[in-house]
Amino acid sequence: MNIKINTRTEKDLLGLKEIPDSCYYGVQTLRAIENFNLSSSKLSQFPHFIRALATVKSACAHSNFKLNKIDNNKNNAIQYACQQIINNQYHDQFIVDMIQGGAGTSTNMNINEVVANVGLEYLGHSKGEYQYLHPNNDVNMSQSTNDVYPTAIKIGLISAIEQLNTPFKNLIGSFKAKSVEFSDILKMGRTQLQDAVPMTLGQEFGAFAATLQSDLDKLNRIMPDALSVVNLGGTAIGTGINTEVQYREYAIQALSEITQRKISSAPDLIEATSDMGDFVLLSSFLKRTATKLSKIANDLRLLSSGPRAGLSEIYLEPRQPGSSIMPGKVNPVIPEAMNLVCYQVIANDLAITLAAEAGQLQLNAMEPLIAFKLFESIELLGKAMQMFQQKCIDTIRANAELCQSQVENSIGIVTALNPYLGYETTTRIAKQANETGQSVLALIKAENLISDQVLVDILAVKNMVHPKQSA
Amino acid sequence: MNIKINTRTEKDLLGLKEIPDSCYYGVQTLRAIENFNLSSSKLSQFPHFIRALATVKSACAHSNFKLNKIDNNKNNAIQYACQQIINNQYHDQFIVDMIQGGAGTSTNMNINEVVANVGLEYLGHSKGEYQYLHPNNDVNMSQSTNDVYPTAIKIGLISAIEQLNTPFKNLIGSFKAKSVEFSDILKMGRTQLQDAVPMTLGQEFGAFAATLQSDLDKLNRIMPDALSVVNLGGTAIGTGINTEVQYREYAIQALSEITQRKISSAPDLIEATSDMGDFVLLSSFLKRTATKLSKIANDLRLLSSGPRAGLSEIYLEPRQPGSSIMPGKVNPVIPEAMNLVCYQVIANDLAITLAAEAGQLQLNAMEPLIAFKLFESIELLGKAMQMFQQKCIDTIRANAELCQSQVENSIGIVTALNPYLGYETTTRIAKQANETGQSVLALIKAENLISDQVLVDILAVKNMVHPKQSA
Amino acid sequence: MNIKINTRTEKDLLGLKEIPDSCYYGVQTLRAIENFNLSSSKLSQFPHFIRALATVKSACAHSNFKLNKIDNNKNNAIQYACQQIINNQYHDQFIVDMIQGGAGTSTNMNINEVVANVGLEYLGHSKGEYQYLHPNNDVNMSQSTNDVYPTAIKIGLISAIEQLNTPFKNLIGSFKAKSVEFSDILKMGRTQLQDAVPMTLGQEFGAFAATLQSDLDKLNRIMPDALSVVNLGGTAIGTGINTEVQYREYAIQALSEITQRKISSAPDLIEATSDMGDFVLLSSFLKRTATKLSKIANDLRLLSSGPRAGLSEIYLEPRQPGSSIMPGKVNPVIPEAMNLVCYQVIANDLAITLAAEAGQLQLNAMEPLIAFKLFESIELLGKAMQMFQQKCIDTIRANAELCQSQVENSIGIVTALNPYLGYETTTRIAKQANETGQSVLALIKAENLISDQVLVDILAVKNMVHPKQSA
Amino acid sequence: MNIKINTRTEKDLLGLKEIPDSCYYGVQTLRAIENFNLSSSKLSQFPHFIRALATVKSACAHSNFKLNKIDNNKNNAIQYACQQIINNQYHDQFIVDMIQGGAGTSTNMNINEVVANVGLEYLGHSKGEYQYLHPNNDVNMSQSTNDVYPTAIKIGLISAIEQLNTPFKNLIGSFKAKSVEFSDILKMGRTQLQDAVPMTLGQEFGAFAATLQSDLDKLNRIMPDALSVVNLGGTAIGTGINTEVQYREYAIQALSEITQRKISSAPDLIEATSDMGDFVLLSSFLKRTATKLSKIANDLRLLSSGPRAGLSEIYLEPRQPGSSIMPGKVNPVIPEAMNLVCYQVIANDLAITLAAEAGQLQLNAMEPLIAFKLFESIELLGKAMQMFQQKCIDTIRANAELCQSQVENSIGIVTALNPYLGYETTTRIAKQANETGQSVLALIKAENLISDQVLVDILAVKNMVHPKQSA
Repeated sequence: MNIKINTRTEKDLLGLKEIPDSCYYGVQTLRAIENFNLSSSKLSQFPHFIRALATVKSACAHSNFKLNKIDNNKNNAIQYACQQIINNQYHDQFIVDMIQGGAGTSTNMNINEVVANVGLEYLGHSKGEYQYLHPNNDVNMSQSTNDVYPTAIKIGLISAIEQLNTPFKNLIGSFKAKSVEFSDILKMGRTQLQDAVPMTLGQEFGAFAATLQSDLDKLNRIMPDALSVVNLGGTAIGTGINTEVQYREYAIQALSEITQRKISSAPDLIEATSDMGDFVLLSSFLKRTATKLSKIANDLRLLSSGPRAGLSEIYLEPRQPGSSIMPGKVNPVIPEAMNLVCYQVIANDLAITLAAEAGQLQLNAMEPLIAFKLFESIELLGKAMQMFQQKCIDTIRANAELCQSQVENSIGIVTALNPYLGYETTTRIAKQANETGQSVLALIKAENLISDQVLVDILAVKNMVHPKQSA
Repeated sequence: MNIKINTRTEKDLLGLKEIPDSCYYGVQTLRAIENFNLSSSKLSQFPHFIRALATVKSACAHSNFKLNKIDNNKNNAIQYACQQIINNQYHDQFIVDMIQGGAGTSTNMNINEVVANVGLEYLGHSKGEYQYLHPNNDVNMSQSTNDVYPTAIKIGLISAIEQLNTPFKNLIGSFKAKSVEFSDILKMGRTQLQDAVPMTLGQEFGAFAATLQSDLDKLNRIMPDALSVVNLGGTAIGTGINTEVQYREYAIQALSEITQRKISSAPDLIEATSDMGDFVLLSSFLKRTATKLSKIANDLRLLSSGPRAGLSEIYLEPRQPGSSIMPGKVNPVIPEAMNLVCYQVIANDLAITLAAEAGQLQLNAMEPLIAFKLFESIELLGKAMQMFQQKCIDTIRANAELCQSQVENSIGIVTALNPYLGYETTTRIAKQANETGQSVLALIKAENLISDQVLVDILAVKNMVHPKQSA
Repeated sequence: MNIKINTRTEKDLLGLKEIPDSCYYGVQTLRAIENFNLSSSKLSQFPHFIRALATVKSACAHSNFKLNKIDNNKNNAIQYACQQIINNQYHDQFIVDMIQGGAGTSTNMNINEVVANVGLEYLGHSKGEYQYLHPNNDVNMSQSTNDVYPTAIKIGLISAIEQLNTPFKNLIGSFKAKSVEFSDILKMGRTQLQDAVPMTLGQEFGAFAATLQSDLDKLNRIMPDALSVVNLGGTAIGTGINTEVQYREYAIQALSEITQRKISSAPDLIEATSDMGDFVLLSSFLKRTATKLSKIANDLRLLSSGPRAGLSEIYLEPRQPGSSIMPGKVNPVIPEAMNLVCYQVIANDLAITLAAEAGQLQLNAMEPLIAFKLFESIELLGKAMQMFQQKCIDTIRANAELCQSQVENSIGIVTALNPYLGYETTTRIAKQANETGQSVLALIKAENLISDQVLVDILAVKNMVHPKQSA
Repeated sequence: MNIKINTRTEKDLLGLKEIPDSCYYGVQTLRAIENFNLSSSKLSQFPHFIRALATVKSACAHSNFKLNKIDNNKNNAIQYACQQIINNQYHDQFIVDMIQGGAGTSTNMNINEVVANVGLEYLGHSKGEYQYLHPNNDVNMSQSTNDVYPTAIKIGLISAIEQLNTPFKNLIGSFKAKSVEFSDILKMGRTQLQDAVPMTLGQEFGAFAATLQSDLDKLNRIMPDALSVVNLGGTAIGTGINTEVQYREYAIQALSEITQRKISSAPDLIEATSDMGDFVLLSSFLKRTATKLSKIANDLRLLSSGPRAGLSEIYLEPRQPGSSIMPGKVNPVIPEAMNLVCYQVIANDLAITLAAEAGQLQLNAMEPLIAFKLFESIELLGKAMQMFQQKCIDTIRANAELCQSQVENSIGIVTALNPYLGYETTTRIAKQANETGQSVLALIKAENLISDQVLVDILAVKNMVHPKQSA
């Protein structure tokens, strides 16, 4: 090809580079993409993170302007550029690989350069005329990657968590709706995969809702607050070198205003610069939820096993032909995909743990992997929750007759007789039922152990699935 | 050997077994140790757990007595036996393997049998005369392993966490003390292992204290409360089968009184019976702390590297000869051991995650591994923290002269000149210093870039390790 | 207590210490147990490792003697002491914690001191009279922990793997026996928990045997050879400092003779000193086996689920009463315990990975954790395999009638008709059977789609569970 | 937008769907992308896998043709289509998400549909005219996803491993070249981060080459052979239902011919259908390599730490400005990125382990995650190795003077005197040097402990970094 691309020349510590005229990023971003061509995940795929980077740049410029470190002109240009990016413009300019060395410097320079060039055009200059608005001297003024980058990750995660709330709540809502729908369907509860005692299918689905609700509550109660404590203003290692004393206060105040959240300064900025503890904690919460979702998916696959040689207590709506060879076979593909996502999230937690442990001295150079995996886990969970809810939970139907008949046919109802007959007698009856195939009730009656009237009361559904009301 | 051991005969579902007369455990415990001879960790090594099991048994008996399900005599016997065990008696009778199938049934039967037999002797009977006090019918009345066992794990963990507070606080205290001691020692901060900008050694140790304090605070704020919500009264699967309606309330009230804590009932007992979420969360907190401690241990090993070809900023007190071949070599053995413990705790978190994910339907049969690994992680961290504090942190000394000279000799101080000279000029100076080996200050002066007076102010320690006070 | 314990005084780099007269270990071992009181696992619990340490010490002494570095007297004493330890004597003297800092120095000094003192008594001297036989100068001559320790781990692991072969083979044998026993029992195969196509129960158990056999074969083919390449003679960092040029050759020759294996020298001793690759590989093999065993345990729990509301294709022999509340309930406790062991082994693999990655420069200081977890995993797997075989697999019985009836009643047999009727027709039939509850065969006959004679041939067991013989 | 897209109508078990005319995939692929919109990784990004799928389809058609199950026309069409895909055509048609439920059915249907439609056009028909060439009845004839999918994964992995060889070998080659280049540079070896004994920088880099060579050798020796044993012909569950007896033999023979490798049939096809052991093993090898590469990256970051307050033994070529605030700072960004990739690969191994353990009965429904993570890990490692070699290793320079001076100034050289003076004397000297700051040699001379001539010989480089040649 002979396409002529107009370029401009930019310069950094290492020398000159040609940048295509159309690009809003500059020389340091270009070095980054030459250095790191590793994963298929680029910054542009993570809009929460990009918007958060612009938010932080905006806040810092506000503070610098208030302290007369930049003039009105430059501030306006920076604010304009940041607002555009917050409004989802120019996201295709964020091309650095999510797996990058440099502790986030490439990501920080990507935003610095895009803001500078968007700002330059706003001011009537051409891209690259950094004498009017400089990526480092102006956009990055009073900042270091080491405070800007983790602060932006935190702001971005708060926003990603907020978005996760929608599919999370919807999924819980669907489980609750099914819990009501199935509230009269009596079935055998199982422990250790062995028939235990009766319950309702509604109780089973209610437990799914409850266990997820507890996760969502804890996530919302703990994480946004934890992530709102930032190290902005700490600059290189937390000492705040190159900042004026009020800079940090003003910047965080601006950050609170833009994000409409109470953002506050970490009490120990040296600690906050290198510590990954809040990210490890967030990943733990995501992993906890993944563990629960995987258990639920496993349960649904078990309960819908069959159609004739399985438990068959529920039906999952078919979503695609299940087999290329076995006609008519339909598989639980949606819960299976849920499992896969959960394993990925659990594995991401390990990647984050490894990266967190690898921090050294005043910085954790592995932070880019932590950011990558956290945003990925939240994204994956959100999409999988929506899939799970819409393509599986909402359309589950119960096999009520089978459920009921298994209770009547069960040995487990003997447990309800335990308080009347004692552990040893009931054990004997259970064993006998098991060996002969007879029903427990038939055996009780044959031995005339309990009067029929009492028996009816004991075995009433309401007494089986709840504690017994005293007479 | 021909030693004659007197035995008694006990019986269960599977038949008869001879039990040595001296043993307070019975037939089901004996089956457990025959079935599970796997790990070298027995229940007897976990006193928090044993005491918690006795605490729960005591609370249940109180409730049964209040509801007239057991008479005064039996209640007294159970209370006596539980109190003895809470007072650390009979712990050698808890011989079941911590790795056991059966979702904790063996552990529950171990406590049921020991309480019954201690109670029987209290009542003037012989061990095994279960007609007077029965392990299942009386001690386990209104209970299932499935509610008693997780409840006891939670009560035991609250107590273990409480005990962990002491070494945790002491370790933080030692870091704080060193932070004060080293508050005047200027040194180079490092990011990505490269010289960055100055800080004090006190700030570095202060950050260690701060990062651990944040973990201790979160642990204490979140976990005891989370663990105080129990499924006691849910019996087999959470439906509360075989309990009277007030039983649960009374049992939990008694549990609160004995433990002197506000224990409450889980809102959804079906969910609470199978859910391992709180255990996963606790393990996450322990893992988070392990990740931080490992990072700190790594830092201390780095900072004390040398004696002549390393960083040598601090000295660790020698704890043992470091080499069987290299005379005089002393190694950082205490931080190394700290690392190993941290890796173990991180691995335990994986074991717990695997076990939690493997729960099926109304119960998690893998709960014994979760209990085992949680108690083990807490125990290991506590001992390692005490070792770290007493045998390492308390006796660390600083190499103040070296620290100071490295700052003066550094290129990183150029950062402080950045706001005065701009990024490009300082970059050039830095590069020149690096290539020529000259000091940054000499180069600045040679070019006469800043007046001496201003330079002195810029480079003042107080301006280097904190934001700059405006004039 | 006022028991008077006679002691001797020993001295090292750090000063004097009193050692109880009865102890064969000395001052450095004592320091180790004071420094590291962390886990409940002591070296004495790992006889393969202790014997391997003695084996290596013996080999080194042979080499030193051959090179005239120690006299006949000293060599005899060392050989005597090592032989005693190889014969399982004095193992209670190996008291160091398996979690220890120092890269194994404490373990190496424990063996050096015990060999020296046993040797001293053999020579007619008292313990501690090291002028006649010195733990460092004589027993550890030409050695460093850094070559002796990994070499001994490898020799010990080869022996542990050899011992693992017995329960491994027995377990495979039991699966094979069941495969034969169940070779005529037709059942439904299941994919994704949905009914698929017929197979025999014998084929299912045969696959368990085959998958484990493949692991045992690979383990035996790859690991002993890999572990037979040692860094003995490399001393401190692999340069072989302080050894004579033939020393290494003689030592490894002696090691080959004592172990009756072809032991060889690593081609790059610098690499071999710090590399943990073979340990990571062994752990991977153990993890792979754990993954398979866990899958098999899961399958057995599924297949035995019931008794009335589960799959119920097989019966597991009851091993203990299954519930403290539900009379007659019997649980699959042995497969559950197998699962727990597998999770532990998988988690151990993570601990080993973390430790391996943490090696720095010329040594991996985290090696003690690697040794600990490897020996533990092998021990756990061996015991669990024996338990699994003897207490579960050997006594499994089939529910042949149910298995057979499920095949006849299945929709999955429609797959066999696919080649005759095409995917679309059979899909329609399958769907109809599913919706109406009718049998596939009845529908085929109603539509008169295939002649009866052909149908009989298609559905013959031999044609269902194997590829079709052409006419 | 009002763009009119021409469509065709396709039909499956679940009903009708409109497919854009331009698409070579069909209804089942479309369902898959509607069901699974989860990750950003699509099948189209994995060319090794796509080509392998086409290879398997081609082999199966050969076998079907030989057995007269498809006519010449259909076979030609299938062969043409497969060859096109093997030649990297139509890869954009492989749009299914790598995270998918259904055990690979969607992937298998994606290739079935694309082959059918490419083949239809070849035959002069339009896409969708499946009466002439059917995705299931013809392209998938005698096959099930359950044998085709794992077989294709294996074939694809063999090819991916082969491609990995190039950057792997190049990286090893670069380390070897540096080993030669640095063979005369004496430096201090370090164990546990403490100065140990001398070595050459060449030896250090040689060890990096050796440890990777050992991995590459094992990978090449073990994995391609293991992956060449396939379950093709087993169809749904390994019984080979719906295949003729020679089908399997012919298909595998064709596969061998197309791939030019000895492919063979698994001895137990039931086992091979559900077993993930070979994938777990491959992931273990990749993890092992990642563990080593991460250790090497850590070492390079340590050795290049500085420039003035670090070890500074080597220089890494600057790849990008290191800091947005600290002028002139250059960071080890390439080794850092290497670390991140390694953590990702280690985490992928966990995802694979979780998925492998989750297999149930006759199939592992989690296989798509295993395939995804394996291809991803290989791809990541390959790119990272190339980056590491070209952008870091090749341009490393040594700081020879510093290395040399640290040896002369070291205490560690006392080790070489150990055989002459004994452990206690040398320990005393080392301690004295440490406390006084004097050099070891000065102290030896002051005490006149060894004659100068002997000393010179002892301290000769050749005697320090190799075993001592006897006189």
